[in-house]
This record gives sequence, C-alpha cells and structure tokens, in this order.
Amino acid sequence: MSEQLTLYLHKLSPYSQKIELALVEANAPHRAYQVDIFNKPEWFASKVNPVGKVPAVTYGGPNVDPEDPSPLSAKIAESNVVLEFLADIYPDSGLLPKDPILRAKARFFMDATTKHVEGPFYAFIRGLESYDNTLKGIEFIQGLLEEGRDFAVGDHYTIADACISPHLAGLKIVIETDTGKFPVGMGYKLGEELKGPKFAKFMKYVQGMLDRPSLKQTYDEESVITLFKTRFTERVQ
Amino acid sequence: MSEQLTLYLHKLSPYSQKIELALVEANAPHRAYQVDIFNKPEWFASKVNPVGKVPAVTYGGPNVDPEDPSPLSAKIAESNVVLEFLADIYPDSGLLPKDPILRAKARFFMDATTKHVEGPFYAFIRGLESYDNTLKGIEFIQGLLEEGRDFAVGDHYTIADACISPHLAGLKIVIETDTGKFPVGMGYKLGEELKGPKFAKFMKYVQGMLDRPSLKQTYDEESVITLFKTRFTERVQ
Repeated sequence: MSEQLTLYLHKLSPYSQKIELALVEANAPHRAYQVDIFNKPEWFASKVNPVGKVPAVTYGGPNVDPEDPSPLSAKIAESNVVLEFLADIYPDSGLLPKDPILRAKARFFMDATTKHVEGPFYAFIRGLESYDNTLKGIEFIQGLLEEGRDFAVGDHYTIADACISPHLAGLKIVIETDTGKFPVGMGYKLGEELKGPKFAKFMKYVQGMLDRPSLKQTYDEESVITLFKTRFTERVQ
Repeated sequence: MSEQLTLYLHKLSPYSQKIELALVEANAPHRAYQVDIFNKPEWFASKVNPVGKVPAVTYGGPNVDPEDPSPLSAKIAESNVVLEFLADIYPDSGLLPKDPILRAKARFFMDATTKHVEGPFYAFIRGLESYDNTLKGIEFIQGLLEEGRDFAVGDHYTIADACISPHLAGLKIVIETDTGKFPVGMGYKLGEELKGPKFAKFMKYVQGMLDRPSLKQTYDEESVITLFKTRFTERVQ
C-alpha cells in the first residue's frame, strides 16, 4: 500500500501492541506516534479519535506531521476494528486467511479472547476476582488450539494471534513476578496451575508467541513490569 | 453459494434475528431450525455449538436432517462472527462494502452497538441501572449516522444494520409499552427523551430499519412483548 498509515499508540498499552504486532508481522510501512495517555494533547481527541483512546490510526491523505493530522485521512479506532482493517488493506499478508471458514475461526478466537480472557484476567490483576474465570477462559482458548500447530488458526500468523499475544505477555509477568492487586502468592499459584499437564498445549502456544521477533520488537517487558507494580501496588495481604 | 447453510436459532432471540436479517437481506438460501432454548436437545451442544447458545450455523457438508448435523460441515457461532462469515461468503451482497475504510466504519458501528447499546439497554430492562447509559450509547450511535442516509454505513444495508436492528425493535417495545423491571413509567420517559429534537436523526434511522420487509419477516412483536412481560414482571414500584 502506498497510502500513509500512522499509528497512535502508547508503548505500555496491550491494545496498542496488538496493532504494532500486526503491522510488523505484515511488514507494513507505517509511522508510530507515542501519545502521552496520562496527559493527552488536545488535538488527539479533536483530530484523531473523539473517544480519546489509543490505539487509533490515520490512513491515507497527505503525509503530514502526526501532531497535526489531516482532515483528508480516514481515522480508525478500536483495536479489533483496526486489526480487521489491516487484514483488509494487506489481503496477501496472511493476517486473515482467504478461506471464509478459517476467517470465521480467527474471529471466533478474537471474540473468545475479548470475552473470556481480557475481562477476567484484568479483573484478577486488579484484585476484583480470583483467577478461576481466567483459568476457565484459558481452557476455552486452549480448546480452540489445534495440536501440533503454532498459530491460533491455520499455518500462519493472523490477527487472532496479534489479538491475544499482548495479554499472554502480561500473563507471563503475573505468573513470574506475582505482580497484581490479588492476594500475595496468587500470581505464582496461577503459574503453577498453568505449568501442569492440563495446560501444556496452551503454554506451548504462549511460548511460541512470546518467542516471536515481532513480540520482542514491540514490547518492553521491564517498563510493563514497572507499570504493573506502580498501578497495582495496593495488595490484599 | 451452493453449499448448504443451516441456521439454528430461537425466534425470540435478538442475536438470532441479526443472522436471519442478514440472510434475508442477502437473499441467501438457508434452512432455519428453531432450537428450544429452554429445553435444549442434547445433540445441539455435542454436534453444533459446544457453548450451547444460539445463533449458530452449519455450513457445507451433506444435506442432512438439522437434528443430526454432519461432522463434515463447518460449525460457526457468535452472532457477529456469523455476520462477518455471511459477508465473506456473499461478497457481492453488499453485507459489507468493498472499500476497506467503509468496512472499518461498519465494524466500528457493530463494536459500538455491542459496547454502548446492548449492555446498557438490557441492564436497564432488567432494572439494574437507569436509562442514562442507554441514552449515552444511543447518542454515540447517532453520532456515527450520516445526515440524509438510511443506513449505518454507506448507501446499502450492511451487517452493521443487522447487528443493531433487533435491539431497536426491543427499544420500541420498551418505550411504547413501558415493559421492563425498571420503575413504572421509565420506559415511557425514555421514549419522551428520544422523541425530542436531540434524537431526531437516530429515530429516523430506527423507523427506517423497523419498516424494512426483512425486519417484519423475521420478527414477531407480539411474542417478544409476551416474553418481555413474562421475564420482566418483578417491577420496582
């Protein structure tokens, strides 16, 4: 594509990272602009995303300063909507398979990630609920994975993998460092459950995703650990 | 398409109606099988949708008795995933535009419907919250509608219209019959707010959707009113 594409993101936002992962995996030329989400510039809501959230992209229009986006570019927000958009503008990237049934599987995986992983996992980190629902969600996701395959769907990296990977990176932090507002030790305990034979297929998938160059390139684990520790300091003792 | 397509649905489920609407609007040949959701047959979870929910579709494989689905057909569930699937297998139906930017707009509209309308509206009907969030959601949706156009996106009926229409039909019941677990009169009051000039664009869109032959063909308002009255009888006085 020759149209300009600018991604507005925050480097510690898992939703932003979804988009970066897809862009890197598709080898898609783009500019990335870091938005200070704790002190958002006024132009961001008025000229990019009225809801004020990252990630958002501008697409097309003239090549302008990202801080002064052109009214001539399309503005697209909501991470899963942007992922579908990237699959549409890069139809040969493999970000979505060509086969309608496999495309539906990829979307079902994304829907399950949103409903069964994102919600329960962040509720657990915030100390709002135990990890039971997170484990149930992981079991559901594991049920979608095919034995002997590396990807969520088919034989290629898709937006389904991009959708879940940032959360898998967060999960790794929780089970390895026990960081979260949950009672002390529950992060480690979740890790022990996941390291049992029951979750072997899921953990193999996790490791495959975390080992990808695209993940390393778009992720600064130390900064995310610091964020988790800062944001989730009030511990239940 | 020459492949068989069977829709498993319940006639009073708004999520099922989304799929029926899209099928009718695309003039897509299909079979519809009513699932008794209050007394689900055993084969439904084991052979169609492990989660046990309608809507779900089987696609392809031999033409068999819907009560004995073939292992050779693809099974697809989750209403918005099925909507995307229909747009994929009927690429010339207009269910999604061809233009990637318009496709993103349709998906953003669907995402907004899920996040800002479905949740708050059913919470209001169930008496769990006031209609404030429903109104905010409607205002957000209205902001996405373009003046002088009949559809959610572009000049054609898309899966974005199919996604919201069943909820618009439910909204009509609430504001015309005051049925819901909310305090008596609040359904009428919501209706008064919506009939003001502030929501004129939204209400024009609603009327257009409710007037469509596809909606009349897939909807039995009297039965839905009866369901609402049965399910939402404990009123806050």
